[in-house]
Amino acid sequence: MTAPVPQRIIHVGLAGLGNVGAGVHKNLEKNRDLIRQRTGADIRVKRVVVRDPTRARDVQLPEEVLGTDWHALVEDPEIQVIVELIGGTTTAHELVCAALRAKKIVVTGNKALLAERGQELFALAEQCGVPIYFEAAVAGGIPIIQVLQEGLVGNRILSIHGIINGTCNYILTRMSQAGLSYADALREAQEKGYAEADPTLDVSGWDAAHKAIILASLSYGFWIPQDKVHVEGVEHIDPADFRFAQQLGYTIKLLSVIRADDKGLVEVRTQPALVPLSHVLASVSGSFNAVLVNGDIVGETLFYGRGAGQDPTSSSVISDLCEAAAVLVYGARHSGFVPHGLYGRSKPVEDTVSHYYLRLTVDDVPGVMAQVAAVLGRRQIGISSMIQPEDLEDTSGRTTIVLMIHDASLGAMQAALEEIGALACVREKPSWMRVETLQG
Amino acid sequence: MTAPVPQRIIHVGLAGLGNVGAGVHKNLEKNRDLIRQRTGADIRVKRVVVRDPTRARDVQLPEEVLGTDWHALVEDPEIQVIVELIGGTTTAHELVCAALRAKKIVVTGNKALLAERGQELFALAEQCGVPIYFEAAVAGGIPIIQVLQEGLVGNRILSIHGIINGTCNYILTRMSQAGLSYADALREAQEKGYAEADPTLDVSGWDAAHKAIILASLSYGFWIPQDKVHVEGVEHIDPADFRFAQQLGYTIKLLSVIRADDKGLVEVRTQPALVPLSHVLASVSGSFNAVLVNGDIVGETLFYGRGAGQDPTSSSVISDLCEAAAVLVYGARHSGFVPHGLYGRSKPVEDTVSHYYLRLTVDDVPGVMAQVAAVLGRRQIGISSMIQPEDLEDTSGRTTIVLMIHDASLGAMQAALEEIGALACVREKPSWMRVETLQG
Repeated sequence: MTAPVPQRIIHVGLAGLGNVGAGVHKNLEKNRDLIRQRTGADIRVKRVVVRDPTRARDVQLPEEVLGTDWHALVEDPEIQVIVELIGGTTTAHELVCAALRAKKIVVTGNKALLAERGQELFALAEQCGVPIYFEAAVAGGIPIIQVLQEGLVGNRILSIHGIINGTCNYILTRMSQAGLSYADALREAQEKGYAEADPTLDVSGWDAAHKAIILASLSYGFWIPQDKVHVEGVEHIDPADFRFAQQLGYTIKLLSVIRADDKGLVEVRTQPALVPLSHVLASVSGSFNAVLVNGDIVGETLFYGRGAGQDPTSSSVISDLCEAAAVLVYGARHSGFVPHGLYGRSKPVEDTVSHYYLRLTVDDVPGVMAQVAAVLGRRQIGISSMIQPEDLEDTSGRTTIVLMIHDASLGAMQAALEEIGALACVREKPSWMRVETLQG
Repeated sequence: MTAPVPQRIIHVGLAGLGNVGAGVHKNLEKNRDLIRQRTGADIRVKRVVVRDPTRARDVQLPEEVLGTDWHALVEDPEIQVIVELIGGTTTAHELVCAALRAKKIVVTGNKALLAERGQELFALAEQCGVPIYFEAAVAGGIPIIQVLQEGLVGNRILSIHGIINGTCNYILTRMSQAGLSYADALREAQEKGYAEADPTLDVSGWDAAHKAIILASLSYGFWIPQDKVHVEGVEHIDPADFRFAQQLGYTIKLLSVIRADDKGLVEVRTQPALVPLSHVLASVSGSFNAVLVNGDIVGETLFYGRGAGQDPTSSSVISDLCEAAAVLVYGARHSGFVPHGLYGRSKPVEDTVSHYYLRLTVDDVPGVMAQVAAVLGRRQIGISSMIQPEDLEDTSGRTTIVLMIHDASLGAMQAALEEIGALACVREKPSWMRVETLQG
């Protein structure tokens, strides 16, 4: 299938080649064809600036691509989009301002920068007539910024409850599930790469608070001053409190709460809080994030996914790059259905493979199971488990057997079932269903 | 605060004033100011066409607005966007084609129309240079179309598992949780308004299948032919199977599964299936919907919310109208931060109200609880429950008491805690935390 739309090259300047920056580079390469077909744009990283170009990296870049001076990105007339992934609020701030003044679209994942200086930066963007995209700044791969800006745009936001720091959620999950102390859980998180060597920004609650400020500002239309936000970290949680919480029907999460009251006063808090075990947020474990949004029209909606890490966060940066590309290619965003023809064929349903559940009503005599198993065996269909519920009061001479069946194609199952249904010892039409193990 | 952007009136023609149509009208009115501030557009329903204008309705419309001939929408030069909510695939098809040819943006919630004739309609839209928006066609208020088109645009979709028919999910939830028969559960769903008088389209699985076709087509870039889709309904599920499923650690859901294998063959199925009880999809109950998307970069993400109903579905239609308005107002979509200043003030954190958990280490002597309760009582802070765990081996002369506290302002709690901490019988710094009841 040919590409449906004009192809245009979009040159990108990338500042920062740490974990997320490397992921953006890697995944843009990996899905280049798909992105080109879906967006009509060939997004190419033209220049990358890093602090230390001699450092060993997973990403191999030609020498002419790599530099150390961010001005090179801003001054390159071919570069139309600048991705800021260097973090911090000083150089990043200079870079973003210079990029906007040079009329380059900015993509950033820098929550601290936006929480601190968002008001100023978006005013500058407005003045310069170029957008800032920042999907990667909150909740990693979960497209929550877009959901608030577009999907729920018609809603007054009644409240948001978010688990939006994966480091803290990993620590609290381990304290809760394995009874670890805070120090041990933190050490484990560091060993597994879920916490930085200096974890202060995460465990103090401030990383989540920066994200909460961004969500609150989008929801309520004014930049929440940092000093109006109530922030507590997870460092002082006592393992004893997990036990008492459990007895009371709760667990403990670092929760960011954003809510307006009926007088229009907005509260923004990030604190450890007790959450009912029966609530879906209680089951958000490990480094996962979730954001529960309550809108006045849509009601309760939940968005869940990996909140950090190279790949999920780069998914959001790439989404922003595609948005930038769409603006550059089409002026307006292309909407509707974009054929991209990379897979292109339907699978015959007989060839689809699944686990199965099978319930049979059979004569309660010896040898029945052997007959059923023989039919399945001849078709290479494996039985993974079986139950035959005992009913001592049943005098019908019949019994029920329930089989769980390994991977089998629908075609093989249908043929086997036809044969099983025709067995003399099988007294009712077999009842069967797919089992979805939900392994992707 | 003044509006940040130029205000422009967008005239909308609305075809259909049933449940969702009436919701669109009502909620556009309700949140008119907010939408105007967020989008820079004043979205006004100029004309409405219905089959029977004499029918009693919740929405009161002036006589000159209401008509019966959809051509009036297409022929009105002021109308720039047409919302199709009449359903079916004949008149709706004529209307959408005529609207596109008249260069009007189309917003539709008609999953059957798109599943059957999407290929033709999007080709026509492309040719006419106007977009079709269809967020309301799948999963009610959950912005899953936008998530696939934009948020996850950089991902190859590995699989989608969706619970995307609220009627079936309500029926199966009641069969599972209350042991009802299919017939009784259906009757109850009809009484509560979760099922139509003629429930065939829902219970046959075809409504979910139409939605699955749309999701699959967006994910894989070609229109899945309806005859390649495997569809089974919920009418034949035996209550016995819920019991056996439960014993095996599963529940039964009407699941839509979309998946590509490594040869690029796409399977699209809607069937009752066993789902592990431990999986988050098993806890999607009643009329709620959820879509689990597995992308090659982002990993597993879940989107959850109300899948049907007047308000949630109208939230999606309004989101599409705002998207249409942004295209009409800005050419390109306005992105970045839009101040809208409708709430505008931060709440002092001392005034925020919450439930609290409070753990005290106190002398194990009579009268301690009375002292603590007196401090709380003086500040009108109510105790909702208390545990005093018994530890017979403890000879320290101290004991732990855990209190759950009713709504109290942070300011009142802080003052009370200072006083409690100073009591002679309280031997350690009080440990306390917010309890989030997650009631919005």
